[in-house]
Amino acid sequence: METGIYSSVNTIWVLVAAALVFFMQAGFAMVEAGFTRAKNSGNIIMKNLMDFALGTPVYWLLGFGIMFGSSGLLFGSFDPMVRGDYSAILPSGVPLYAFLIFQTVFCATAATIVSGAMAERTKFSAYCIYSIAISALIYPVSGHWIWGGGWLAQMGFHDFAGSTAVHMVGGLCALIGAKILGPRLGKYGPDGKPNAILGHNLTIGALGVFILWFCWFGFNGGSTVSATGDSVLSSMGEIFCTTNMAAAVAAITVMCITWLRYKKPDVSMTLNGALGGLVAITAGCDMVSIGGSAIIGVIAGFIIVFGIEFVDQKLKIDDPVGAVGVHFLCGASGTILTGLFARDGGVFYGGGFRFLGVQTLGVVAVCAWVAVMITIVFQVIKHTIGLRVSAEEEIAGLDIKEHGLASSYADFMPMPAAYSPAVAVDPATPAPVPVEAAVDVERRERAFASDTKMTKIDILMKQSQFESLKAAMNSIGVTGITVTQVLGCGMQKGRSEYYRGVPVELNLLPKIKVEIVVCKVPVDLVIQTAKGVLYTGHIGDGKIFVYDVENVIKVRTGEEGYDALQDD
Amino acid sequence: METGIYSSVNTIWVLVAAALVFFMQAGFAMVEAGFTRAKNSGNIIMKNLMDFALGTPVYWLLGFGIMFGSSGLLFGSFDPMVRGDYSAILPSGVPLYAFLIFQTVFCATAATIVSGAMAERTKFSAYCIYSIAISALIYPVSGHWIWGGGWLAQMGFHDFAGSTAVHMVGGLCALIGAKILGPRLGKYGPDGKPNAILGHNLTIGALGVFILWFCWFGFNGGSTVSATGDSVLSSMGEIFCTTNMAAAVAAITVMCITWLRYKKPDVSMTLNGALGGLVAITAGCDMVSIGGSAIIGVIAGFIIVFGIEFVDQKLKIDDPVGAVGVHFLCGASGTILTGLFARDGGVFYGGGFRFLGVQTLGVVAVCAWVAVMITIVFQVIKHTIGLRVSAEEEIAGLDIKEHGLASSYADFMPMPAAYSPAVAVDPATPAPVPVEAAVDVERRERAFASDTKMTKIDILMKQSQFESLKAAMNSIGVTGITVTQVLGCGMQKGRSEYYRGVPVELNLLPKIKVEIVVCKVPVDLVIQTAKGVLYTGHIGDGKIFVYDVENVIKVRTGEEGYDALQDD
Amino acid sequence: METGIYSSVNTIWVLVAAALVFFMQAGFAMVEAGFTRAKNSGNIIMKNLMDFALGTPVYWLLGFGIMFGSSGLLFGSFDPMVRGDYSAILPSGVPLYAFLIFQTVFCATAATIVSGAMAERTKFSAYCIYSIAISALIYPVSGHWIWGGGWLAQMGFHDFAGSTAVHMVGGLCALIGAKILGPRLGKYGPDGKPNAILGHNLTIGALGVFILWFCWFGFNGGSTVSATGDSVLSSMGEIFCTTNMAAAVAAITVMCITWLRYKKPDVSMTLNGALGGLVAITAGCDMVSIGGSAIIGVIAGFIIVFGIEFVDQKLKIDDPVGAVGVHFLCGASGTILTGLFARDGGVFYGGGFRFLGVQTLGVVAVCAWVAVMITIVFQVIKHTIGLRVSAEEEIAGLDIKEHGLASSYADFMPMPAAYSPAVAVDPATPAPVPVEAAVDVERRERAFASDTKMTKIDILMKQSQFESLKAAMNSIGVTGITVTQVLGCGMQKGRSEYYRGVPVELNLLPKIKVEIVVCKVPVDLVIQTAKGVLYTGHIGDGKIFVYDVENVIKVRTGEEGYDALQDD
Repeated sequence: METGIYSSVNTIWVLVAAALVFFMQAGFAMVEAGFTRAKNSGNIIMKNLMDFALGTPVYWLLGFGIMFGSSGLLFGSFDPMVRGDYSAILPSGVPLYAFLIFQTVFCATAATIVSGAMAERTKFSAYCIYSIAISALIYPVSGHWIWGGGWLAQMGFHDFAGSTAVHMVGGLCALIGAKILGPRLGKYGPDGKPNAILGHNLTIGALGVFILWFCWFGFNGGSTVSATGDSVLSSMGEIFCTTNMAAAVAAITVMCITWLRYKKPDVSMTLNGALGGLVAITAGCDMVSIGGSAIIGVIAGFIIVFGIEFVDQKLKIDDPVGAVGVHFLCGASGTILTGLFARDGGVFYGGGFRFLGVQTLGVVAVCAWVAVMITIVFQVIKHTIGLRVSAEEEIAGLDIKEHGLASSYADFMPMPAAYSPAVAVDPATPAPVPVEAAVDVERRERAFASDTKMTKIDILMKQSQFESLKAAMNSIGVTGITVTQVLGCGMQKGRSEYYRGVPVELNLLPKIKVEIVVCKVPVDLVIQTAKGVLYTGHIGDGKIFVYDVENVIKVRTGEEGYDALQDD
Repeated sequence: METGIYSSVNTIWVLVAAALVFFMQAGFAMVEAGFTRAKNSGNIIMKNLMDFALGTPVYWLLGFGIMFGSSGLLFGSFDPMVRGDYSAILPSGVPLYAFLIFQTVFCATAATIVSGAMAERTKFSAYCIYSIAISALIYPVSGHWIWGGGWLAQMGFHDFAGSTAVHMVGGLCALIGAKILGPRLGKYGPDGKPNAILGHNLTIGALGVFILWFCWFGFNGGSTVSATGDSVLSSMGEIFCTTNMAAAVAAITVMCITWLRYKKPDVSMTLNGALGGLVAITAGCDMVSIGGSAIIGVIAGFIIVFGIEFVDQKLKIDDPVGAVGVHFLCGASGTILTGLFARDGGVFYGGGFRFLGVQTLGVVAVCAWVAVMITIVFQVIKHTIGLRVSAEEEIAGLDIKEHGLASSYADFMPMPAAYSPAVAVDPATPAPVPVEAAVDVERRERAFASDTKMTKIDILMKQSQFESLKAAMNSIGVTGITVTQVLGCGMQKGRSEYYRGVPVELNLLPKIKVEIVVCKVPVDLVIQTAKGVLYTGHIGDGKIFVYDVENVIKVRTGEEGYDALQDD
Repeated sequence: METGIYSSVNTIWVLVAAALVFFMQAGFAMVEAGFTRAKNSGNIIMKNLMDFALGTPVYWLLGFGIMFGSSGLLFGSFDPMVRGDYSAILPSGVPLYAFLIFQTVFCATAATIVSGAMAERTKFSAYCIYSIAISALIYPVSGHWIWGGGWLAQMGFHDFAGSTAVHMVGGLCALIGAKILGPRLGKYGPDGKPNAILGHNLTIGALGVFILWFCWFGFNGGSTVSATGDSVLSSMGEIFCTTNMAAAVAAITVMCITWLRYKKPDVSMTLNGALGGLVAITAGCDMVSIGGSAIIGVIAGFIIVFGIEFVDQKLKIDDPVGAVGVHFLCGASGTILTGLFARDGGVFYGGGFRFLGVQTLGVVAVCAWVAVMITIVFQVIKHTIGLRVSAEEEIAGLDIKEHGLASSYADFMPMPAAYSPAVAVDPATPAPVPVEAAVDVERRERAFASDTKMTKIDILMKQSQFESLKAAMNSIGVTGITVTQVLGCGMQKGRSEYYRGVPVELNLLPKIKVEIVVCKVPVDLVIQTAKGVLYTGHIGDGKIFVYDVENVIKVRTGEEGYDALQDD
C-alpha cells in the first residue's frame, strides 16, 4: 500500500475539497437569487447551473490543457480531452483525474461570479457564450501564468487558492460586464441617484453565504493539494484558522461600519462582508498569521462597504449582489496584502518590497489580460446577438421572457390556483343550479334588494390590531369579515432606512383592509366599535369607509339581502 | 498503526461518503417540496424525514441481513440488529458499522425517491407503510442479488453505485405507485390533455438539485469503499470526473432540446436533466471514459425530455417531480449503457454482447421483482387503509388535512397575523373610546355624510407604473392611496408558454389595484391625471372605476366626511 | 511520511469534521428563521452570523486558553491569541491549529443555540454582548472542566461530543434568557393560555434540520479527534450508527406521540424530535450500543413533546424554536442516560451507580455555573442597555427596526414594486395624454356615467372553483375579471388543529374575491351563473355582493361607461 505512486490521503483531501468547491455553485446560486427580484429567480438558477454545466466539458476540451499543458511563459498547450502527460505538474501522489476535477470546479467558480453582477437584465444566450469564453480561454491563460508554471509563477507570484486567479478574474469580468450592460431599469433616477432594489429572499441569500463559507474550507484548505508531511498538515490547520478568522472579522467590521454610517447594522452588506474577507484571505491564507488574517479581514470590511458604495454611487455601475466589491476589489487587495502580511517575504516581516512588487505586478497583468479579452467578448456579443434583454422583457422578468416560466413561485405568490386549475371542470356542463335557488332569483327579481338598506364598511388598519377588531365585531353580531393585505400610502411620512448604503424611503406601509357588509347590525355601532378598538391617538390608526350595497346573495341558500347576511 | 485490520483511509472515505449520501435526503426534500404546491410542503418534508427515520431501524432489523447475510443466490439471511459475522463480505479495512451506515443511507435513498412521484395525494399513513416495505424487503433482496453476492453478482452484473439497485428500484416503485394512485385532481382535463401544475419554489428545488449533485460525489466516489492502492485512487478521480461530466452534459442536452421544442430553455426540466445524467452514470462511472460519460449524459438528456413527456402525456401518469424519468428511465438506461460503454467488456470496446446481455438481464429481473412486490404492497394498502386522500383533503392540501398545519408558510403567504394575534387583547375590556370621538358619532349621526359628495376611484393598472402614478397623485393633492396586488383576466390574451413540455396559458396577469377616495380633489382631475400617466396606447393600460362613498371616518381624530380626508 | 509528528488521517478527520460543524451555523440559521415570523428573518440571520463572527476572535483571544491552557481543576489559563504550549493536551498527531479551529466551531455552536429561544424580541446589541460572554468565558470554563483536564474530566465525567458541554450550556442560557426576556407579545392570552405563533417557512426550517443532522456526523464522528488504530476506526463507524439511530428513532417517537395526542402527526415537533435525539446521543455515542441509542432516541422523543409542552404551557416560557427542549432537556438527559446505557460502566451493564453519579454531578455542576453566570450577564444587560426591544419595535418586526430592512422578502411579500420603481420616470414630465382622450373627459363631463346603469359584482369564493367560474363568466360575455386573495372569517366555524401542542383555531380561511363590473351583461345573469357554478350545498359556497358603479374609464381608448366595458 505504501509503495504506490499515489497517496491515499492526498487523493482523499483533493477529492473532498473538489466536492466542497463544487457545492459553492449552490452558494452562489442562492446568494444571487436571494439578492435579486423574484421575477428573475429561475433565470439566475439556470445561469448558475449552466456556467458549471458548460464549463465542465469546455475546461476538459480546452481549458485544462491551456492551463497546465506545458510550462510555457504565457500558455500551456492545446490538449483536448486531457490526453497529454501531466506528470511534471501533478501534485505529489495525486492522480491526474483527481487533479482535473479539482481544477474544473475552481474554473467554474470564476465563471459563476459574473452572473451576479449582470443579473436581471442579461440575455441568457449571451450569458452562455461569454461563460464558455471565460472557462475556455480567459481563466485558463491567467491561471497558467499563476498556477501552471507561467511567467508569474516563475517570478514568485503567490496566489495560494485564487484571490487573483479565480475571484479577481471573475470579479473583473463582472465589473466590465455590468458597465457595458448598463444599470437595471429604475436603478438610477433621472438625477443619477441610485435607488435601492431590494432582494426577494435574504434568508436564502444568507444560506448561500453560509454554504460558501463552509465550502471555502475546501477551496483554501484543499489548495495544499496534499495532506502529507508535518509542514503540510500544520499548514492545513493554519489555513482553516486564517480563512475563518478573516471572514469573521470582515463581517464584524462591516457590521460596525454600517451601524455607524447607516445607524443600523445592515444585513445584506454584512453578508457581503463575510464573503469579502474570504476572498481577501484566499491568496495568502497559507502565509499570514492568524493575527495577520484578522487585519486583512478588517481591511476587507472597509473595502466592502466603501467599495460597494463607490461602485454603486460614484461609478454608477449596477451590481445587484455586490460581486464587484467582493470578488474584484477584495480579490485584488487580498493578493497585494499578501505582499505586506506574508510571514515569509512580506513587507511587514522585513521581507522588503520585492515580493509586494511581484504581487502587484501580477494583479495588474491579470487585470490587463482579463479586461482586454472580456471587453472583446462582450462587445462582439453586444453587436451580434445582443447582450441585454429588451426593456419589456426586463420589466416582465427574465423568468417568463427567457424561460417561459410564469413564476419560480407560481403557487406561492398571490396567484394561487390561477395557472393550474385545482379541479378539472367541463365548462360545457356547468354544475347543477339548485332549482329552488334558481327560481328564487327569477321570482324575487331585483326588487328585494332595495327593501333593506345594506352597507359595506371598509376598515383600513394595522395588522397588529386585527384580532382585537375581530373579537369586538363578533361581540356586536358581525359574523362575516373579509381581510385583504394592502399597502397604504398616506400622510404617515416614510421613514428613511439604508439598504446597502442607499436610502430607502418607506412610504408604503403594510396594512390590512377589513371588509364588512351589514344590514341588521347598525352601521354606527360598527363604526363606533371599530373606533374604540383602533383608537390609540397615534398617526396610522386607520380610516373607515362606508359604501352603499345594492344586494347580497348567499350562494348555498340562494337567500338575498337581509337574509343572506344572517348566519345560521 | 499500519498493522491493524482496519484502514484509516478506507474508513474515512466510507464515512465521509456516508454523511454525503445522508445529506441527499435534504436534496430530495427540497426538490420535491419546490416542484409541488405550497399547500403540501409540510407533508413532503414529513415524508422525506420519515422514510429515512423509519428506514434506519428497519434496515438494521431486517434489510442489512437480507442484503449481506450470506452469499445465497436469492437472499442473504435473517439477522436482526446485525449480530452476524460479515467478515466475508466487508470491504477490506472497513469496520462493520462503517459499512452498515454506508448501506443504510443508500437504502434510504431508494425509499425517498418514491415520495416525489406520489406527492400531493398520498395518505401519510400509507406512505409510512410502503416506505417500510421498501427498506425492509424490496430493496434488500434485489440489493442482495447485485451487491450481496447473489445471482446477478455471480453472473458479473455491474452496477457500481446503484443505477439499478437504488435508483431504478425507487423509480419503478414511484412509477407503479403514481399509476395506482391516479393523477392529482386537475392534472388532466376532460379531454385527457395534461395541465401544468407549477411548483411553488423553483429556487429551493434548484438548491435541492445542487445538494444532490454535491452528494453524488459521495454516492459514486464512496462506492469504491476503499481509498487504498493506486488503481483505487486513480479510479476515485475518474469517478468524480465521469459523474460530473454526465450530469453537466445531460443538463446542457436538456437545455438545448427544450430550447428547440418549447422555444425557450426550460428551467425545471434542465434541473431534472442534471439529475438524469447523475443517475445514468451511476452504474458505470468506474468503467467508462470521460468521453463515454459525456455520451451517456447526452442520452440521459434525451431520455429526460422525451421520457417525462411520454409518462406525462402518453401514459398519463402524473409524476409531479419527474422521478420516473430521472430514476427509473435513466437508472435502467444507465445500467444497460454500461454494457455498451464499459472500457472493459463493453460492446463499443470490442467486448462483445455477453456483458450487455447480463446488464439487460439484471435490469429486467430487478424490474420484475420490484414490480410484483410493490404492486402487492400498494394493492394491500389500497384495499385496507387506503392509499389516497379524499378529494376534499387533496384540494385543501395535505398540510392541513394530514398534519393539522395551517400552512408551512403561515406568516408568509397572505395571512399575516391571522393565526397569531400579535398583540394580546382582552375583548371583554375594549380599549377606551376617546370621548370626543364617541360623542362625535352620536351628535353628527349619519347626517354629515350626505353633505359632501365623496368618491372612490379604483385604478386597475400595471405594477411598473405605480411610482409614476403615486408622484402624479401627490402633485394634485391626493394623499391617501391603498394598493392591492390582484390578478387581472381580461382581453389581454394569454401567451402560451411551456412548463415541462405542457403548455401553460397565462391569461391571469399580475396587476395592482390602486384605491383613492377623494372629496376636495375633483374626480375628473384624478381621472385625467391617471390617464396621463398610464396611457401608452398598448393593450393593458388599465381601467378606472368610480364609486360613490357614503362616509369616511378617520379613527385618530374622529373626523368624518370631508374633514376625514384632509391630511394634517 | 510516517515519521512525522502529525498524522495525515487524524488531521484530515479533524478538519473535515470542523468544516461540517461550522456548517451547523447554516442549519441553526435556517431552523430559527423558518420557525419564526417573516418580519424577523433578517435579524435572525444577522444573529446567527454574528455569534460565529464574534465567537471566532473571542475564542482565539480568551476562550481557547481558558479551556485548554492548563489542567487546573477549574480554569485553564489566560493565553490571548493561542501562543502557549498545548502539546500536553493536543490529540495525538493533530496540529495545534487544526485543534483550534475544531474547538472554535464547537464553541460557536453553543453560542448560536441561544438565539432561537430568544428570537423575535431581543435587542441586537444585547445579543452581541451576551454572545461574546458565552464564547469568552461561560462555555470555556465548563468546557475546561469537561474536556480541558478540569475536575469533571478527572472524576471520569464522560461527555463525548458535548451533550452537556455544548448543548446543555447553550440550552440553559436559552432557557434563562427566554425567562428573563418574557414571552413575545401575543404569545399568552389574558387567561395565560398559550397561543400558537406559526413559523413562516417550515420548508427552510426542515432544510436546517437536515443540515444539522448531516453535520452531526462531523460533530460526533469527529470528536474521536483521531482516525488511527483499530479501536478508533471501529468506534468511528459505531458513532455514525448510534448518532443516526437515535435521531431516527426520536423522530419516529415524536411523530407517534403527536399523532396520538394531537390526532395528527405534527411536522415541526417531529423536526425538533430528530434534533432532540441527536443532542441526547451526543454524550454517549461512543459508549452505547446501537440498541441503546435507539432507546435513548425513544426517551428523547418523549422529552421533546412533553418537555416543550411543559416549558410552553406550564412554565410559560416562550421558546419559539424549541431550543430549550432540544438542547437543554435532551442535553442534560442524554448525559445522564449515558450513565445508564454505557456498555462500560453503565448501570444497565452492571457498572453500578458510580458512573451515573458522576454524570449527574457533572450536569448539576455545569447547570449551576452557567445559570449563575448567564443570569448575571442578562441582568447587567437588562439594567444597562436593555435586553428587549420596545413593543412597537416587536410589532413592526426586528428587521425594520433593528436593521432598517424593509423586509427580508421585499419583492416577494405583497409589496411588489413598492420600494423599487421598476421603471424610472420623471414626474416633472408626465407621459403624453392622448388628446382625444383628454378632450373626452372634458366634453363628456360626468354626465355620461349616469346614462347607463353599471354594476359591480363581488364574488367571495373558494380558490378551487375559480377556473370553473372564469369559464362560465366568459361564456356569458364577461371579459374583465379581477381576482384578489383574501381571508374570509365567517360562520364556517374554525377547525381546531394543534401546532406544537397548542391548539390553533383556523377561523380565517383563504378565499378569493372576484370582482366583475358589468353593463351590457345583465346583473342577474351573472349572479345566476355564478350561483350555478359555485353551488355545492355545503357551508362555504360563497357570497355575492352587488354595488352601483358611477363610471368606468378605459385608459387606452379614453372610452367611458358602457363603451369602456366592451372589449374589442
